[in-house]
Amino acid sequence: MADALEQLKQRLAEVYDLQAVARLLTWDQQTMMPAAGAAIRAEHAGTLRRIAHERFIAGETGRLLDELRSREDSLDPDSDDACLIRISRRDYEKEVRVPTELRAEMARAASQARQVWVEARAKSDFKAFLPALERNVELRRRYVACFENVDEPYDILLDDFEPETKTADVRPIFDEVKAELVPLIAELRDVDVEDGFLTGDFPPDRQEALVKDLVRTLGMRPDSWRLDPTEHPFASGAGVDDIRITTAYDPSELFSLFATIHEYGHGLYQHQLPRNLERLPIGTACSLGIHESQSRLWENLVGRGRPFWRFYYARLQQSFPEQLGGVELERFYRAINRVQPSLIRIHADEVTYGMHVILRFELEQDMINGRVELAELPEIWNQRMYEYLGVEVPDDAQGVLQDVHWSSGLIGYFATYLLGTVMSVQIWHGLVADVPDVEEQIERGEFGSLRAWLGEHVHAQGRRHPPQETLRRAVGETIRARPYLDYLDQKFRRDLAA
Amino acid sequence: MADALEQLKQRLAEVYDLQAVARLLTWDQQTMMPAAGAAIRAEHAGTLRRIAHERFIAGETGRLLDELRSREDSLDPDSDDACLIRISRRDYEKEVRVPTELRAEMARAASQARQVWVEARAKSDFKAFLPALERNVELRRRYVACFENVDEPYDILLDDFEPETKTADVRPIFDEVKAELVPLIAELRDVDVEDGFLTGDFPPDRQEALVKDLVRTLGMRPDSWRLDPTEHPFASGAGVDDIRITTAYDPSELFSLFATIHEYGHGLYQHQLPRNLERLPIGTACSLGIHESQSRLWENLVGRGRPFWRFYYARLQQSFPEQLGGVELERFYRAINRVQPSLIRIHADEVTYGMHVILRFELEQDMINGRVELAELPEIWNQRMYEYLGVEVPDDAQGVLQDVHWSSGLIGYFATYLLGTVMSVQIWHGLVADVPDVEEQIERGEFGSLRAWLGEHVHAQGRRHPPQETLRRAVGETIRARPYLDYLDQKFRRDLAA
Repeated sequence: MADALEQLKQRLAEVYDLQAVARLLTWDQQTMMPAAGAAIRAEHAGTLRRIAHERFIAGETGRLLDELRSREDSLDPDSDDACLIRISRRDYEKEVRVPTELRAEMARAASQARQVWVEARAKSDFKAFLPALERNVELRRRYVACFENVDEPYDILLDDFEPETKTADVRPIFDEVKAELVPLIAELRDVDVEDGFLTGDFPPDRQEALVKDLVRTLGMRPDSWRLDPTEHPFASGAGVDDIRITTAYDPSELFSLFATIHEYGHGLYQHQLPRNLERLPIGTACSLGIHESQSRLWENLVGRGRPFWRFYYARLQQSFPEQLGGVELERFYRAINRVQPSLIRIHADEVTYGMHVILRFELEQDMINGRVELAELPEIWNQRMYEYLGVEVPDDAQGVLQDVHWSSGLIGYFATYLLGTVMSVQIWHGLVADVPDVEEQIERGEFGSLRAWLGEHVHAQGRRHPPQETLRRAVGETIRARPYLDYLDQKFRRDLAA
Repeated sequence: MADALEQLKQRLAEVYDLQAVARLLTWDQQTMMPAAGAAIRAEHAGTLRRIAHERFIAGETGRLLDELRSREDSLDPDSDDACLIRISRRDYEKEVRVPTELRAEMARAASQARQVWVEARAKSDFKAFLPALERNVELRRRYVACFENVDEPYDILLDDFEPETKTADVRPIFDEVKAELVPLIAELRDVDVEDGFLTGDFPPDRQEALVKDLVRTLGMRPDSWRLDPTEHPFASGAGVDDIRITTAYDPSELFSLFATIHEYGHGLYQHQLPRNLERLPIGTACSLGIHESQSRLWENLVGRGRPFWRFYYARLQQSFPEQLGGVELERFYRAINRVQPSLIRIHADEVTYGMHVILRFELEQDMINGRVELAELPEIWNQRMYEYLGVEVPDDAQGVLQDVHWSSGLIGYFATYLLGTVMSVQIWHGLVADVPDVEEQIERGEFGSLRAWLGEHVHAQGRRHPPQETLRRAVGETIRARPYLDYLDQKFRRDLAA
């Protein structure tokens, strides 16, 4: 008979196997599955999630965790086993409060709402989506009500994506960012930047060849990664040696380039997670915020920087000589960093991006706390878009209906995008302190030290510790807005707008 | 509280969901997965199969089946519910005898043996494979020993693939086939048929375009099917509206053409299974023999027939004008039907194919009954290949090591290939009786009546009845070798060799 710790590990490994398989099903659905397969796929995904949930919250898990309490106290708290027991207990105590029937209902409602949203967005018809959204929000309120001693209801939702991070921790960071972004955007929006050459004729097959070359150059190993086209780019995978990233090819612009670098950042994190802990909760990603710090670091700090383009611009020009052959590097660099308030979050530049997230973070709290009528969301959305970014929203498809998250029940998720972006600059500083010539290396097309530093300081930590502790161990401090704001000020005000 | 039947259906649906997901993982592994993902994939597949097995053999399943006994007696035995209870009880009573640990060990040993086989075949080194094969055979013997009142040990293995079919049922059929094939092959092997134009330069991209056109023409719906390249063609899928067939493109010949039609036949069967029973055991394929009757019907009765090529040959010539532009239809038809004993089963013509299967069927019984030493398999294989087909086997890679089955623990499987081939002719006759102008329809490129007849008479029966009863309901008789032998005699002796 295996001891309690071994038994716990076996139980958890099975649960994590089921979750990994469910992720692969989602990847398949969005890249490979014939459209008509959606109905049976929903059943399969539901069955996997239900069984995983049941097995995780089974009494036996609780019994093993109880039995391990004294053992845990005797272990070095930083040891893998102590971290495993701690994280598992936290997950278990959270999950066991949620009735399986509520979990199932949340999954079912989200699955139905997603379909409603697709059609509502296509017709730009918020009213058609409203009942499904109301149902999702109502179920989230019931979910929140499963917990006691809550400072703010939104804490519970945020914690699902950014563990041990409270709304009250995030609010001052975002307030500080907002206070500087609003005037910075007002200042930069009128700077005239020529970028007409970024729109035109970019044949998808040449984009595909280019981004495949790009990710190989960054370090994607073909024996353990795939890159496929999809509608909305994402990163997924079944394990550290089975990484699946996706991108989208818009024939009229180079969105695929930055989307692919972004997803490469996510993929590299997954690929460099501790492989000896692969089937255990501490072997997974720490939080969505830490995940996003990796994708945003690659997308922005690397992919929108001069050193990278000094290395790679000639290759890009070769791919699109008609569009870019006559555009010199500096003009291109300025164009891809143009600051211009716009409607769609995923197309926003580095400066305006934060305001898109802050708007959602604020709105979500109002939704959960009942401070707004859901029926009035479009009006409030459009008002705030004008207030924060000075743009007029022409229709709901380009406004409140643009993101998939709420339709999938993902409330509390958006904040992690900006938390990750803020942390990406702190991590970059930590990296530069240890690898002072990293920009010269990038300019030579060498990414090995960059990958290795991230692997050692961030990725290999897995989920042993909560995100802020993970960040502290990587760079010596927890999240601060200042480095991010200074980075924006330096890059966009002092350099580009000078 | 749902009644016992509803509860049983829910339990079974979950088990079938897990099995469908496991099939999709296998498809993914052979078409999409990066090579390094194999290790974690084995864990995921193992977990799915273990959980499916545990949930199926759980005491609760037995309790529900007991509770349903009187209800079953009161139902029309042909009703879906009666069939469901009957089939589930049969599966349960078989499966519950097998210790979970033995199942797990069989799966693990097969997974390991498969890897050993890949390397052994590459080096044509049977000795390297022998220990893994011995382990697989030993575990199959232990599996057989879980059952009582067995006529022949091999019955248990055969029953896994062809339910309610005994070795003693198969033996006389195969003996009758063998008695006619041996002289027929001897007679036809010396007939000179020109087929040099079937070997040469067939660019894979043009093959791919052609077979995609072909399956669309036969009736593959793009919203619910996929066709992808792989090393060894197979058909799979996650449901009736998620059908995945695969093929392989050899740049020097047209293997892909017949492989694709074959897999199309399997795919169509899956696609036309009763969709209201999709997540239940009676909604699946009846047996591997019935499955193969469908693939062989499309491959041989349709795909190697004159009517089809009268319709499609011009399209083929357009794809490969250098190879086939100057070859008239009848020469092509004779070439694709050339009878020539050869080494590899999957490349065998219609006449010699049966002997490849009979050889394996006989050998497997000897292996399981301990009548041969496994170490002597290559020698026995080569001897019989000479005796049955008159060919000399130059090495084990082209001999005893050619098939993947034994390495995957699939003993008892081969027979279904010939059972299906024999039945395919009986089904064809049934079809022609109801659709007398089917050949004219095929010649016009119309496949709708053919698909509909198979759908109604074979596919829609699902697994309500055992294979012979399914055949009897489709065509009014159970398996007989005579129609198949008459078909071969007519096509190859009276027509082609005349």
